[in-house]
This record gives sequence, structure tokens and C-alpha cells, in this order.
Amino acid sequence: MSTAAPGRPQGVYSPVLTPFNADLSPSAPRFVEHCRALLGQGAGLAIFGTNSEANSLTVAEKRGLLDALLEAGLPAGRMMPGTGACALPDAVELTRHAVQAGCGGVLMLPPFYYKGVSDEGLFRAFAHVIEQVADERLRIYLYHIPPVSGVPISLALIERLLREFPGIVAGVKDSSGDWANTAAMLRDFQPRGFDVFAGTETVLLDTLRAGGAGCITATGNVNAGPIVELYRRWREDGADDRQRALNETRAVFQSYPMIPAMKAAIAQRRGDPEWAVVRPPLVELNKTQAAQLAQRLAALS
Amino acid sequence: MSTAAPGRPQGVYSPVLTPFNADLSPSAPRFVEHCRALLGQGAGLAIFGTNSEANSLTVAEKRGLLDALLEAGLPAGRMMPGTGACALPDAVELTRHAVQAGCGGVLMLPPFYYKGVSDEGLFRAFAHVIEQVADERLRIYLYHIPPVSGVPISLALIERLLREFPGIVAGVKDSSGDWANTAAMLRDFQPRGFDVFAGTETVLLDTLRAGGAGCITATGNVNAGPIVELYRRWREDGADDRQRALNETRAVFQSYPMIPAMKAAIAQRRGDPEWAVVRPPLVELNKTQAAQLAQRLAALS
Repeated sequence: MSTAAPGRPQGVYSPVLTPFNADLSPSAPRFVEHCRALLGQGAGLAIFGTNSEANSLTVAEKRGLLDALLEAGLPAGRMMPGTGACALPDAVELTRHAVQAGCGGVLMLPPFYYKGVSDEGLFRAFAHVIEQVADERLRIYLYHIPPVSGVPISLALIERLLREFPGIVAGVKDSSGDWANTAAMLRDFQPRGFDVFAGTETVLLDTLRAGGAGCITATGNVNAGPIVELYRRWREDGADDRQRALNETRAVFQSYPMIPAMKAAIAQRRGDPEWAVVRPPLVELNKTQAAQLAQRLAALS
Repeated sequence: MSTAAPGRPQGVYSPVLTPFNADLSPSAPRFVEHCRALLGQGAGLAIFGTNSEANSLTVAEKRGLLDALLEAGLPAGRMMPGTGACALPDAVELTRHAVQAGCGGVLMLPPFYYKGVSDEGLFRAFAHVIEQVADERLRIYLYHIPPVSGVPISLALIERLLREFPGIVAGVKDSSGDWANTAAMLRDFQPRGFDVFAGTETVLLDTLRAGGAGCITATGNVNAGPIVELYRRWREDGADDRQRALNETRAVFQSYPMIPAMKAAIAQRRGDPEWAVVRPPLVELNKTQAAQLAQRLAALS
């Protein structure tokens, strides 16, 4: 973190769950409330990520939800919206909107419909967005999540993007689940001011010890406080114990489909059953699963 | 085909390539011209498919291109636009637009960002679109293309959709590349009036002999006439020879990235280099590849 510029995104970000109403429309009031709570726990807002069901939202819905946060007075500098899309004009529109709103950065998926595409094609896709947005304030965090997107962002591609767009290409979220890949990014790119965020808090301590910037992690929605605490105190005694405790909580959520499980947990905590609603193709937990999850979470604390 | 209702989509459909200008904006005039030529060769128009770079287009761009065809007087009944999307409201908007335009059917991808989703979740996704569009004229052709989408449409899911939405769920395009799967669909569903289209003309004759409806195939963009000829004359002597000739032409295109290769071939035929433009993440053929392709195609004829 010695390389981080002041005000630059770092620490723990939550890929913010998107609450829906029973009719599947987004619930802006719940979204604002959840974001405010996460900020209060010290987490940043990686809105419109995988855990946000962002690709299940239209461009207009995403614009509307970001605007709702701004109108509620939440700080844009603490937001890192996902703005990648299969259609480049959509990515340009969302990225421009985020930059003009003053967001601290954007988290950018590659176009993810075609598989087996070349680094040249992916380079052109990112370059097109950068050139169309044409704003020096733009900070792009590349979103590497091949198990879901099916489109990896190679080390060679990062190298080329860093060379062509220094400053603009600012970091990565590595959700590959492959520590060797995260370690390579930390070794090759972090020292050049390219901030590496782990995609799960289970490797937060390892990431910080290797000089990384933090993590952007699903469970940041439901366990933000303790994850932020590890980030703040990772050099102190007891850090490994903190890491182990985080891993236990995560393991509970990970034994269910993560997004429905986190929404079920919030629905229970808030006594607001509609919080459990997901958009197809996701499916909410059934009653047995939800009751079991509640028991297991209670047993942790 | 004995089960086909009159006017129902059948035969050979081209997943129509989408031409772009040099600035990557869609070229409606070239699109209309290409569609008119395909219709003249007897092919139907599966606009906004995988080969159309449809997921690289915004919803507004797709609406605009369909409207351009209608304004040019092309018959909506011969169109089967792709209307699936990751975000259900986008799928609803595109599907409604197609139905209201009088399109013969729509070809529908499942939401394709999340992988490993359940049949229940996919069922809800299709059901949501059907219920929101709420129009008896809707005819959905399911688009099974797991090598690209990463989200298969199982036989069990088709069974359930057919049971719940008879008439509306009208058929499938099988681009799995797995003949055993196509054969199972032909056996289990075609006799119930669910029309099976092969995803490649290399199995057109096999599909027709097993009672299928036709094919929706990439090379329908560049070799429509001979493919349509096999469809029309598949019961005659020489059908196997026709099939072999089709396979030879396809093999040439398939030895390159298909979409750029087909666009290069059309650019050459029309003397219009801009026809070769693709949107990232795709990359056009380089000059060596394009020249070699032209030679190989010339050698075929």
C-alpha cells in the first residue's frame, strides 16, 4: 500500500447486493439503506458487481440506482461501480456516467458473450471504452472472474493495458480463485502502482502481506465489520485468528448459492422478507435452507 | 415437417451478420441490402444471433436495425430476431418489439452471465418474458448454444416449458455441436410440433431425415443458395452430394474465426472493405488471412 496515492480506492469493498421488490423491480430505498450501512462499517461500495446481479439489470436501472445513492448524499469517491458490458456502447455509457458522478473508480468486466477471444480483441474493447470516455479522471479496475465470465484477463493483456494507459488502468479484482495468479499480479504489477484486490476475504491477509490493496468480496455485504477490522489491523498480533474467523463465516455462506444466501440473511436480520428476492436465473433459498442458514449463522456468534 | 403449421418458420435461416461503419456504428443500409439478398436466395432472417454480434449491440441499436428492415418493406414473418438477454427487462422489451412487428418468431438465449444455474431459475426467466409480453402471437425458439453462452438448455427444461406454454414455446436452435442432443430433441419434441433447427448445415440432411424443421446456420450468410437448395430437394437423388459440397464450403470458413471470415468474404464480393469491420472483442482477419480465404473460396467454385 506504500504505492497508493491519497484518496485512491483501497481496503474492503462490498459488491453491493441489489434489493428487489416482489415484482422484481429494483428497490432504491433498500439499496440506499444497505449502502449507507456498509459505509458505516468501513466498506467501500463496489455496486453493480457479480453479487449485485448487475448483469441482470438494464443500463437504465443501473444509472437510476447510482443516481439514487448520489441523491441520498452518499460519497461517490467511495463507489466503484461495475460498468463492463457485452455491448461496448453500454460500457461507454455506464463508465462515463460513473466518472461524471465522481466515482473513485470503475470495475470493468470484459465483453463476456464470446469465449476464446484474443488478447488483441480484449485490448481493443478496453481501449475503445477509454478513448470514448476520454476523461482523465477515469480509473479502471479490471475484473478478472473467469469462472463466471468465461473470459479471462491475462497477465500479458494487463501488461499491455498498463503500458498504453498508465494511470487510467489502475488495478484489478482477481476472482479467479487461483492464488498463483493473484501472486503473479502482486509481484509484477502492484509495485508499479496497479492495485491488486483479492476477490475473496479468505486471502485478504495473504494479499496485504504481499503488498496488495485489499479485497472486494461478496461477504462484505453481510460481514463487513470484521473484514474491515482485519484490513485495519493486519500487522497486529491476532491477524491470523481474525482471518480464520472470517473464513468460518464465509464457509457458511459458501455452502449455499452465495447471492440468495446473503439476501436471505439480510431479510432475516431486517425482518424484511422481500430482501430475499432475486432475479431469474437465480433462485431464492427455500424455507428449509433459509432456516438452516439462520441457525448456522447464530451458532457462529 | 408434417407437423408444421402453415406460415410457421421452417427451412434455412441466416443468423444475419451485422455490418458496421468504420466508427463501429451499425450500418443500416448495408444490413437492409444483405437481408434483401438473403431473402432472395430463399433464406429466412435470424437477425441478432451469435453471428450477428447481437450481444455486442445495445437494445436501442437492435430496435433500430429491426425497424430499418421493416421500413424497407422486408417481411416480418420471415424474421426470427434474437431477443434473449442477461437482463430480463431487456429481453422483454426486445421480444415485445419483435412480436408487435409481426416477426415469425424470436430466438431466445437464456440469461448467460451466471453459470451453473438451475433449470428452475432458467424456467423462471423464460416464463417471466412470456408472462410480461403476454401476447398470443409470441413464438419462442429456444437457443441452445452452450459452447458460447455457457448456459445449456436441458431436455428436462424444454419438457417443462412445452408443458406450461404449449404453442408459445415453438422450437429450438441446437448449436451444441452434439448430434446425440439434436437427435434426442428430434425424437422427443419434434413430433409434438416443437420445431428443431440444427445449428449448422453440416447436419441439415440428417435433421430433415429425422423430421426436423431446417437449420439456422452461420454460413447461411455466404452460401445461402446452395443450403436452401438442399433443403428444397433433400428427398431427391444427389442430396448426399449436395450435403458434401456444403460441408466443403463450411470447412473453409471454419478454418478461420467464422464471423470475421464471413465478413471478409462479403467485403471482397461487394468490393466494400468496410463490410469487414467487427466490434471488439472480435478482430477482423489480417490481410494474409483474407487473401488466403479469397483464394480458397475461388478454388471451391
